[in-house]
Amino acid sequence: MTAPNRNTLWAETLVDELAAAGVEYACLAPGSRSTPLTTAFAAHDDVEAVSLLDERSAAFFALGRGRQTGAPTAVVTTSGTATANLHPAVMEASEGRVPLVVLTADRPPELQDSGANQTVDQTKLYGSAVRTYKTLPEPAPRPRALRSLRVTAARAVADATGTPAGPVHLDVPFRKPLEPIHVEGDVPEDLGDRAPLAVEGRDGPFVDVTRGTPTLASGERDRVVDALEGADRGLVVAGPASQPTPSRDTLAALARASGFPVLADPLSGHRFGHAEDVPICGGYDSYLDASEAWDWPDPDIVVRFGASPTSKVLRHYLRDGDARQFVVDPAGEWREAEFTASDLLVADPTRLAGALAERIEPGGSAAWRERFERAEDDYWSLVAERTADAHFEGGALSTVAANLPTGSTLVVGNSMPVRELDRFGQPGSTPVRVLGNRGVSGIDGVTSTALGAASAADGPVVAVLGDVSFYHDMNGLLALQRADVDATIVVLNNDGGGIFHMLPIENFDPPFGEFFKTPHGLDFSPVGELYDAEFVRAGSLDAFESLYRESLGASGTQIIEVGFDAAESHRTREAIHEAVQATLS
Amino acid sequence: MTAPNRNTLWAETLVDELAAAGVEYACLAPGSRSTPLTTAFAAHDDVEAVSLLDERSAAFFALGRGRQTGAPTAVVTTSGTATANLHPAVMEASEGRVPLVVLTADRPPELQDSGANQTVDQTKLYGSAVRTYKTLPEPAPRPRALRSLRVTAARAVADATGTPAGPVHLDVPFRKPLEPIHVEGDVPEDLGDRAPLAVEGRDGPFVDVTRGTPTLASGERDRVVDALEGADRGLVVAGPASQPTPSRDTLAALARASGFPVLADPLSGHRFGHAEDVPICGGYDSYLDASEAWDWPDPDIVVRFGASPTSKVLRHYLRDGDARQFVVDPAGEWREAEFTASDLLVADPTRLAGALAERIEPGGSAAWRERFERAEDDYWSLVAERTADAHFEGGALSTVAANLPTGSTLVVGNSMPVRELDRFGQPGSTPVRVLGNRGVSGIDGVTSTALGAASAADGPVVAVLGDVSFYHDMNGLLALQRADVDATIVVLNNDGGGIFHMLPIENFDPPFGEFFKTPHGLDFSPVGELYDAEFVRAGSLDAFESLYRESLGASGTQIIEVGFDAAESHRTREAIHEAVQATLS
Repeated sequence: MTAPNRNTLWAETLVDELAAAGVEYACLAPGSRSTPLTTAFAAHDDVEAVSLLDERSAAFFALGRGRQTGAPTAVVTTSGTATANLHPAVMEASEGRVPLVVLTADRPPELQDSGANQTVDQTKLYGSAVRTYKTLPEPAPRPRALRSLRVTAARAVADATGTPAGPVHLDVPFRKPLEPIHVEGDVPEDLGDRAPLAVEGRDGPFVDVTRGTPTLASGERDRVVDALEGADRGLVVAGPASQPTPSRDTLAALARASGFPVLADPLSGHRFGHAEDVPICGGYDSYLDASEAWDWPDPDIVVRFGASPTSKVLRHYLRDGDARQFVVDPAGEWREAEFTASDLLVADPTRLAGALAERIEPGGSAAWRERFERAEDDYWSLVAERTADAHFEGGALSTVAANLPTGSTLVVGNSMPVRELDRFGQPGSTPVRVLGNRGVSGIDGVTSTALGAASAADGPVVAVLGDVSFYHDMNGLLALQRADVDATIVVLNNDGGGIFHMLPIENFDPPFGEFFKTPHGLDFSPVGELYDAEFVRAGSLDAFESLYRESLGASGTQIIEVGFDAAESHRTREAIHEAVQATLS
Repeated sequence: MTAPNRNTLWAETLVDELAAAGVEYACLAPGSRSTPLTTAFAAHDDVEAVSLLDERSAAFFALGRGRQTGAPTAVVTTSGTATANLHPAVMEASEGRVPLVVLTADRPPELQDSGANQTVDQTKLYGSAVRTYKTLPEPAPRPRALRSLRVTAARAVADATGTPAGPVHLDVPFRKPLEPIHVEGDVPEDLGDRAPLAVEGRDGPFVDVTRGTPTLASGERDRVVDALEGADRGLVVAGPASQPTPSRDTLAALARASGFPVLADPLSGHRFGHAEDVPICGGYDSYLDASEAWDWPDPDIVVRFGASPTSKVLRHYLRDGDARQFVVDPAGEWREAEFTASDLLVADPTRLAGALAERIEPGGSAAWRERFERAEDDYWSLVAERTADAHFEGGALSTVAANLPTGSTLVVGNSMPVRELDRFGQPGSTPVRVLGNRGVSGIDGVTSTALGAASAADGPVVAVLGDVSFYHDMNGLLALQRADVDATIVVLNNDGGGIFHMLPIENFDPPFGEFFKTPHGLDFSPVGELYDAEFVRAGSLDAFESLYRESLGASGTQIIEVGFDAAESHRTREAIHEAVQATLS
């Protein structure tokens, strides 16, 4: 390297080290102060760089890619309000445990608190939402400073991909000139010869961080084995996780060994793509509701993986029993807001599940298992029958899930689509990925998340989101052209916040209509033209199914809108729920 | 008040007190956790509530209203990522000194750090960007708690409108039920009788905060008078401020008394709408450039008001002289990043300017004044002549400024429009308001800022912004229907970041084109259809002028796009600049 000035040297070293540590992709928002970083990323052979204009969408795009790959993705912004635009995605990355490397350019120290333009206090900007924050020192062409920079970069990537994975934030001050202009004498010409290690780095990361995973001692593990073996009615609950947690093979082994039914959240990685011989339950949100009324027994042992399940019915079912509940979390965090879990196992889920599967003697009540199996059979038959002619969002999610091809990715929005998928997405063995921003469950950034996931996908990518979510992140569609991705985007349009029909506020109007349901009346059809995507409207779920299947095989991006009446959908959902209750009780 | 439960009581009390303390307008983003706040705002007679779906735009809308009125505007969101979406506008409100009352709903304390949904650490979420942060206690139907709530609310509004004005953040936890459902025994029925003060508040704010303004002692003031009287070449520099700083009358008085030329930033409130007999200089960005080369003398005294001027040429001119520079700031902050100012006067600008104007004996060099007057005459003649046939952004800004009717508001975007206005917006005496987000100078939120300003405007509102800014905040256009506002929106479309042509990075391609200029090729015409606005394209500046003048008198919103070639515009600007240098030297 023969950097023309210290800023160029500094940024090239930083980017080179990030790449060596595993960053393969960078979302760059245009800006002046970030020029050295942008220039270095654009020039680096091992990093794909994409330019996105809205930092909020750029950060969600990076998040989506991180969800898909598990690898750290970089986001780069200039100083000032640009940095704050990343905050929503940083929050989601933190709670959703998605690696993200945030690089914010900054003004040099002497311009802080001086009235200089685009200068704000960026110190610890994202508060407790990042795993690591560091203000980098001023660029310096000194070997020790450059080695320190490489160590910082390698450690930041290691922190982003640690346990739990999440966002890290490096604030990077630069003083002009920001461009790769030759500054005589700024970088000693013999620096590379004098300090090849600092300047060139190593083959691979400068610091290779090897992080052990928490593993129970054999005695501790055996006590869990004993507890599971002693159970009459055991359950495995797989909650949301970006990567199947534990791994699919291990969960299948644990299910086989224990004979426990597995209740799999749609975002767990286990609802769809499970082993064929392992019965996965997906209808619990319906049939466990009001279960006490009709003698559905409580579990006596529960093993929980991943985050808290999407289904409130399931959470309450687990709360109301008197089961011993093992929550397995490698990060040792608490992810169970009903506060009835009795055991926190701070352990690598895959390793632990594998160890348990090897040792457990099957036992427990056959009637218990059969009850779940029968309920599943009855539930999905009933859903098939009742959704055939019903026009509601659940029917769309049922269709979407049932037709996902092998290797595809489904990104499902909050607040309603994920719940509809939970209820109407029938478990299946086709290996697909289902992702959602269930860390904080915002309605923002869904489109960008999907397109970021698409940037690293081998198969088709489908996003299903509501109209408010779609509106919120329309800017994300710019990535279609700029990042060379495509997707099938399904907009369930019920003109406002359909979820509020499920809440008691529905009965208070005003303010219900104007401030909760908030019908916007937007006709989204011009959006296709704006972003050079195909926009089609399905008048029925049959029409939707054929448009959807066609889109899966087509190139380019299709935005398929299906209109619903939220109040009517709510009634349909209630009617199905009542039918389930009547049939199963 | 007979609140059905403690949450309703709490939110009604909070909103009632905010209203009593001066909040007249609230931007509400839909959400569940914020239900008590939304319901209370929607029901309050003295607060106009508007529902906006993208929190980022909602916050900029509130900011724009605050810039226009100087009064505190509330923004309300639910918990989670919604809160982070406000961060860019909160930053701008802080640096731009705009009052803003941010209310974020939160989960109750027991759900913090529990894995509960939409639950993040919202404590001090906006870091040092807010004047006040407070986590409110849990709602309680007790007189002391309610009085404490009223005191907190009244103080928060007082802090938001203090010196310097800015954002305040109240985090408001609620436990279910969130709706105004009757909860038996939750609120004592006799609470209102027992504690009318706590429940009903006072007639007016519960705590009437009267804040003195910093005022120099007579001896301190007289030293400033002496300094100004002793000056040969004095200057008054009026930098950006939401409200004219000092007031227009006082600045005029100071200019008359001192005989000093006034260099008025386009965002100072003094460039446009100044007193007719006071010569205001606006062409300095051009004629003070390279001034040393042609014997333009340095000032010996400078009095600076407002924030740092937009013009880099002016900042450097002030830096390079050896003048005694008084920076007047009532908040005592430092707003001069060249670090050559010698005196910081922590004093109310209007009061100080008035006091100085009363006492100064005019003096100084007539040649000095005449030099500025002649330069102004020559400059604006030359601009008129050279812009007549040139197609560049500066011509559009010149047209916009020259045709603003009395009482209108111009909101001008970063990064180029404000600079173009600085150079090509000729000073005039028509009283208009010119606003810009020059606190942090982001390109985000400009449309929403303009529409927020429109919500409190008596006359027409014009926004002029670049295409990247327009893209960034397209969601802001939803306010057109939801907040019942209209505006003339002028999009200067040079397909990407025109400003980068002014920076040395232009000479490095790659990465210039793909990562800096970033042409997006968006055809914005469908945006009109999407948001029910009129979208028109002007093929020339003449066509633009007639469309613009038509729009000023028309109802509804017109989006007028004018296309430019950024590289060509850059050359035009350079040519005009060279002509100025040749003429004036």
